This record gives sequence, C-alpha cells and structure tokens, in this order.
Amino acid sequence: MSYLAFKAHMQKIADVAYSIALLSWDQETYMPEKGGAFRAQQIATLSGIHHKLFTDPILDDLLNQLANDTTLDVKQRKNVELTKETFDKQKKYSTEFVELMSKTVSECFQAWQTAKEKNDFSIYQAPLEKLVELKKQECELLGYKAHPYDAMLNEYERGATTAEIETLFVDVRKQLVPFVKQIKEAKQVSDSFFFKNYDTDKQWDFGIELLKQMGYDFDAGRQDKSSHPFTISFNPLDVRVTTRVRENDVSEMIWSCIHEGGHGLYEQGLPTNEYGLPLGEAVSLGIHESQSRLWENNVGRSLGYWKKNMQRLKEIFPEQLKDVSAEDFYKAMNKVESSLIRTNSDELTYHFHIVIRFEIEKALFDGAIKVSDLPAYWNAKYKEYLDIDVPDNTKGVLQDIHWSHGSFGYFPTYSIGSFYAAQFFAQAQKEIPGLSTQIESGDMKQLLEWLRKKVHVHGRLYSASELCEQICGEKLNFAHFMTYAKEKYKGIYNL
Amino acid sequence: MSYLAFKAHMQKIADVAYSIALLSWDQETYMPEKGGAFRAQQIATLSGIHHKLFTDPILDDLLNQLANDTTLDVKQRKNVELTKETFDKQKKYSTEFVELMSKTVSECFQAWQTAKEKNDFSIYQAPLEKLVELKKQECELLGYKAHPYDAMLNEYERGATTAEIETLFVDVRKQLVPFVKQIKEAKQVSDSFFFKNYDTDKQWDFGIELLKQMGYDFDAGRQDKSSHPFTISFNPLDVRVTTRVRENDVSEMIWSCIHEGGHGLYEQGLPTNEYGLPLGEAVSLGIHESQSRLWENNVGRSLGYWKKNMQRLKEIFPEQLKDVSAEDFYKAMNKVESSLIRTNSDELTYHFHIVIRFEIEKALFDGAIKVSDLPAYWNAKYKEYLDIDVPDNTKGVLQDIHWSHGSFGYFPTYSIGSFYAAQFFAQAQKEIPGLSTQIESGDMKQLLEWLRKKVHVHGRLYSASELCEQICGEKLNFAHFMTYAKEKYKGIYNL
Repeated sequence: MSYLAFKAHMQKIADVAYSIALLSWDQETYMPEKGGAFRAQQIATLSGIHHKLFTDPILDDLLNQLANDTTLDVKQRKNVELTKETFDKQKKYSTEFVELMSKTVSECFQAWQTAKEKNDFSIYQAPLEKLVELKKQECELLGYKAHPYDAMLNEYERGATTAEIETLFVDVRKQLVPFVKQIKEAKQVSDSFFFKNYDTDKQWDFGIELLKQMGYDFDAGRQDKSSHPFTISFNPLDVRVTTRVRENDVSEMIWSCIHEGGHGLYEQGLPTNEYGLPLGEAVSLGIHESQSRLWENNVGRSLGYWKKNMQRLKEIFPEQLKDVSAEDFYKAMNKVESSLIRTNSDELTYHFHIVIRFEIEKALFDGAIKVSDLPAYWNAKYKEYLDIDVPDNTKGVLQDIHWSHGSFGYFPTYSIGSFYAAQFFAQAQKEIPGLSTQIESGDMKQLLEWLRKKVHVHGRLYSASELCEQICGEKLNFAHFMTYAKEKYKGIYNL
Repeated sequence: MSYLAFKAHMQKIADVAYSIALLSWDQETYMPEKGGAFRAQQIATLSGIHHKLFTDPILDDLLNQLANDTTLDVKQRKNVELTKETFDKQKKYSTEFVELMSKTVSECFQAWQTAKEKNDFSIYQAPLEKLVELKKQECELLGYKAHPYDAMLNEYERGATTAEIETLFVDVRKQLVPFVKQIKEAKQVSDSFFFKNYDTDKQWDFGIELLKQMGYDFDAGRQDKSSHPFTISFNPLDVRVTTRVRENDVSEMIWSCIHEGGHGLYEQGLPTNEYGLPLGEAVSLGIHESQSRLWENNVGRSLGYWKKNMQRLKEIFPEQLKDVSAEDFYKAMNKVESSLIRTNSDELTYHFHIVIRFEIEKALFDGAIKVSDLPAYWNAKYKEYLDIDVPDNTKGVLQDIHWSHGSFGYFPTYSIGSFYAAQFFAQAQKEIPGLSTQIESGDMKQLLEWLRKKVHVHGRLYSASELCEQICGEKLNFAHFMTYAKEKYKGIYNL
C-alpha cells in the first residue's frame, strides 16, 4: 500500500509540474503580449505548491518505509531510491536559500538581458558575481568529492565529475583541434543556396513531413512556432516541439526540426505507466541530447538521409535548388567554419565553444578567475581555440542565457550528448542490418524501434554510464565521435 | 495586514483556477488527441488543490477577522462579504457529497454522450435520475426561501428567484407568442446566400477585423478555433475567444465572433488590481450574457452595423454577395423561424426554447414531473410554443449538454442576458449622442467606453439588479426587449 501511496503522491507532483510546463509552453507560443505579468505570478504560485508537495513530510515517511520494503521489485526499488536521492537533496536547501537564489537569478537574468542589448558587460557583472557566490555556496551545501564544480555538473549529468569531463575534453582538444585545422586548410564548400528565399509555409510543411518520417506521433504531440526551438512534455502522450522558420535560411528550420524531433521521440517513448516517477523520466541531459543529436547529425546530416528527402525538397523548391545536387546539399550542411556564436556553429567546432565554457566555469568555481575577468578570458579563449576575434561582448561572453539562470554545469552535456550519439549510432549500425538502406529510403522504423528498446523505455532505470555500457559494452568513448567525424569530413573536404 | 493576507490567499487561489482554465483551453484548442487521459488527471489534481486552498481554515480566520474590520473601504468590504458568502456556502458541502456529485456528473455526462449519439433516452434516464436526486439534496443543503429551484438559479444568477423568473416569462409568453405568430404569417425573408461557399481563411480574417473594430485588444487576447465557440479568461490581460468557421455558412462565424467578442470585452474590462477577488469578477451569468448579446444582437444584427461592414464583406466575397444588399443581409440575419435546436434559433423564438427548459426544470425540482416524463413533456412543449414536431430525442430533449453537467438553473440566464442587453442598449442610445452614426461608420469607441464605465470596471461591486438600477434607473424590465423587437421586426416583416 505504501508504494501505491508513494506513486499517487508523485503523480500529483507531476500533475503540478506538467501544468507549469503548459503555462510555460503557452507563454512561448500563443500567450498575448500583455499576459506576461499575471502568468509569471501563476507559474510562481504553482512552483510554490510543487515545492511544498515535494518536501511534504508524508513523502519523507513513505520513502523511509519503502527504503526497507523487501516486497518491491527492481523498478519500484529504483523509483524509491532515485526519489529519495532527490528528496534528500531538496532537504539541504533552506527556504531562505531557495528564495534568495530565486531572487538573485531573477535579477541576474534581467541584468543579462539589458547588458546583452546594450553590449555592456558592467551591467551584468555585479548580479553575476552575487549569483556565482551563491552557486559556490550551493556546491558546499550539496557536497562534492574532488572539485566544487562536480556538484554543479551533477545537477544535469548525474554522476559526472570535473576530472572525467576534463579527461574527455583533453581528447577533444588533442584530436579535434588538428583535424579542424586540416579542414580549414582544404578547399571550402559553399552553402550559399541555403540563404535564398524559401516560402515559410512550404518550409513548415516540409518540417512536418520530416517529423512524421522519423516516427514522431502527431496524435501524441504537435509542432508550433517560437522564437527559440524547444521540446516540452506534459506526459508521453502529449509531447510538443517548436521550431522557427526564416524566409532566408532553409537550413535553420530543417535541422532544428530534426533536433527537437529527436528530443520529442525520446519523451514519447518514455513509459506511460511510470508517469510521475523517475522511471518515467529521461536519464540525464546528456542522454537526452544524444537522442536529438543522433537524429540531427548522425542521421540528418548524412548523405543517405538526403537521397530521398532531397528529391522531395527539390519538388517543393524547384527554383531555389535547381542546380543543387544531394551531394552539394550534404556538403553545405556540413560546412566547417569558426563562428562567434555557439548556436550557429558546425558539428565539429561546436565542441570548442563547449570546451571554452567548461574551462571558464571550472575556473570560476575553483577561484582561478573572477567574474570581472570573464570578457578578457572569453576573448582569449576564442582566439586560442577558434582563431577568431570577438568584436563585442554581445557576440561574446553575453551570448548565452545559461549563466544568468544559474545553469552552471549545463554546457558540457551538449558535447557529451554528441559523443553518446556517435557511439550509439555506431552500435545501431552494427545491430540493424540494412540501416543505411533504410535511411536512404526514408524508412526510420527500425532505428526508432532500436532507440525505444535500448534507451527510451527504461526511463531512469539505468544511469547514463550504465545505459551506455549496456548498449555498447563500454562507457562513453570519444573515439566513436572521431571515427565518425573523420570518415565524414575526409570525404567532404577531400583530405 | 489581514486584508493583504486575504488578498494574497485569494490571488493564489485564482492562480490555480486560471491554470486549470489554461489546461481546459488547451484541451479544446491545441491538445493532441492522445493527451486527454493525463490531462483529465492534471485538471483533477489542480481542482483538488483549488478546493483545499479555498476551504483552508486560514481563509476562514481571515474572513472572520475582516468581517469586523472597520478600517476597510467599501470595495474591500464588498470583497470580504462576497468571499465569505461563497466560503460559507462551500462549508455546507461535505467531502463525500462533493465526491459523489463529481462521480455522478461524470457518469451522467458519459451517458448523455452515448444516449445522444444513439438517440436513446433510456441510456441517460437512470444516471440523470440519480443526478436530479442529488441536485435536489443540494437545494436543501444550500437552502432557499420559496422554491427549491431558487437554490439552483442562485448558483448562476445570484439573488434570482423562481417566482421572479416566472413573472418575467409570463410576459415573454404573453407578448412574444402573438408577435412571433404575426411574423410567421407575414412574407418570409430569404437567407440562402449565407450558405454559399465562403473561403474559411477569408472568413477568419474578417472575424478578426470585426473583433478589432469592437475594440477587442489582441495584445491582451487572441482568437483560436474550437468545436464550440467559447470565451475564457486567465486574467484581464489574457482573455481568449474561440470560434468555428464553416465553409458553407458565413453567418455562423460572424455572429459567434461578435458574441464571444462581447464576452471577451467584459473580461478585458475587469479591473486588474482586483485580480482574484470578487470585484475582479463578472457580476453574474445574466450580466455576462448581456454583454455578448448586446454586441451580437443589438449592435451586430442592426442595419447600421452593416452599412460599412457590408461593403467590406462584399470586397472579400464579391461573387457570393454580388446581388445582396445590406438590407437583404440585414433581413437574412434576422430571419424568424421555429427551429428544433436552441443554438440555431433566432433572436425571438430563442426565448421559447429557454421558457420550455425553465418550465421543465422547475417541474423537475418541485416534483411535478419525473425524469422519465422528460421526452414526452419536452415534445409537448415544443408543439405548444414552437408548433414543431420533435422527430427524435437527439434533436429534442438530448440536444443540450447542461443537464448532464448538473447545470440546472443555467438556461434562464441566457434570456435574462438578452433582456438586460436590450435595456442597457436603449440606455446607451439615450446617453451617447450620435451612437447610431458611430456604429454605421464602424466606430465603437464610445459604446465600449460606456460599457466599460457602466458595467465592466465594477466587477461584482453591485449585484445584477443594483447594477441595472444604477445604469437604467429601474430593475430588469422586459418592455425594453419588446420595444426593440417590435421596432426591428415590424420593419423587416412589413407588419
């Protein structure tokens, strides 16, 4: 009976959490302009209720009872164990600390917006200093083994450590830096046809076609427009993605669609009978990102994927793509070029943006640098890794929203996701006979089925490393990404 | 300080209530098909939280303290008084009663859907009997002065009594029955051009134009599509309307748009600083309906309204309306014809549908008839009032959703709303110089301003009758509706 009571309480918490999610989705998609003020209040109220439910002593009692309940099966035990972990973590925060953090984040976010708009880091500096100070306190509060930043990483990628990421990123530097240098010295590819005029309604319809082809269930989801693409779930039977469509850039819509579609498929594949429980949730941000990147890059930026889809796209935009072959299209979508802005960067140099942010965050948390050092430090790193001069802070240190939200430790999950994606996809290619041919003909059923079985259905039953070992027989291994990258880019750049 | 605490608690309740409203809005507009199951659970959870907050002993304490607080101003006192009234009413319900009611309504609604689909009243009978029995118990629980049905009426039109409505409907019968008879004997008007083919996108855009012309603020609202048009508010700065657009009937979209627009303007006009409090709410269903009907009928079905708007509509649909004058259009939109279905009926015979429902509900609640008598009783009434034979129960006693929801006492507010509308509009014509000319030229500013000042800004500061007396110097008076109807329809039907 305790397990049922526990499950009911958790589902109640989930009902509130997903109601907040709907309030946010609406805010980003359909809410009229003036609705913002009361909406913020409504979200704050539900967040308070959510917090109260999650820290309810009833839940504590239930968790303590269930901790010693030998009648539970493996999955039930895992749900109890993971919930207890989160619950115990929550208990470490005093109400005062939570309120101070929330207030500081809010100030810092406001300051970041203004600073970015006015290209003036000084507006952001003091609030960010306050926030970093508070985040350092949070590290102490949460505890860590080796490095304070471990506590931050652990918030997004449970179990990840600074040392591990550092080792991983040494590989990235060692292998990716010379490879990118080689590419830059080769003959460059052209992507100018991406930037012709493409009717936005037709683009939209093509995006929907791609999602359907991937197996995204439109009876259990939908796509809308928002200023930044995102995926949000209210339960596995109602998972929504958004995209943005630009008239003068067909590429943005296509790969944001496939990327969010990958996230969406993961959420749609989570078990409905574990709704509200850890086993109904995604493993980690890294694993989530592995699903979006696998579809976006390993599938969606492959030559085979565009065999059939390019024919279709040319039917829709015959004028714009008249002289463009699938091969040209493939080269263009994989153009490697140092860029100032992380979100505009290619599949390879992307990771330099992440390494830079990781190094900065680590240095901030172990005191090697101060917030006031950020702009200069940032610009030096961009020169070092990307050989690029940062013209102003808006295009530099102020570009990302994450720090203003207090999301330190988040960035590395993007790279981890790409590396898991390459590793999982290599495994899928081994295990699914004829996968390449299937992708060429637009048949994604077996790939999706494989991902469902290997990743989606488990929820949080396994940790990220356990899952990776179970699927691939080894832990996260950067070599798979390099193998994939070398094979692909050597062809494209004739190396 | 108590008043601030009271206000904060009430706003928290409102935040939850409006979150439920968003969950419902989404369900009717954008939610994917499979999302329904968990959505119902999410709404149920928030409803439970809402109930708990509203029946919180803290609120009871605050209300008792504030009841004797002499420092409150008039508005604050009213907020406390009205909240206490609702709170004390809530206390009369036991948890068991609420749960039993909710379960019974749910069963009855399911049964009604099947019964309507299969045209089989017997499926509906037993659940409805159970629900009526429970509703009768609710009347006893809530208390009433003269007639048990008073308690039901009071739920939707605070202060209304069976005796009052009866007196009102005697007038309706006495004056409207012979007038409609006279109209039916006259030469009939044609509305066939409404049912040509009208592009739905163009219709949609025209509907938006009409809403803008009325002064509906699209920065504080939006229009979407749903299978039944409705208005929903999340706060006065986010009020949404929906409509439905049929390719073969331009009239449905037009007047549903104007009708919901009228509701929407009321909600947008409520004071934001009273958010969550009675003074931030509409007076009653009758007054709410007065706002939609005033715009829909008194304005939107007048000849003047179509002087400029008809030119515009002919620009959009030149082919379909080639030989149609504003006068033809005006006659068509006011065509009087007995119909089986309430929602399809004209401005005059509409009230017979309501009188019938009122008589049936009253008879059910004082035991004059039983649920099993309903089909025969219904059909006899339709013969008597509308001289129409009901071919089957789906088009008869099963047509409306209201009873299956337990909404007895709701129907009369539709007629009351129309009568208030005629009375308010007559007053507006007296007080706004040049109103007719303004409407002819599409300038609704002064009318909206008048409604804002006279009705919207007050929230629930005055009761419906107080408001009516304050605006018109007398209580609800059916004579204004008859004066309006006679003037209008005598012209149309050459009487």
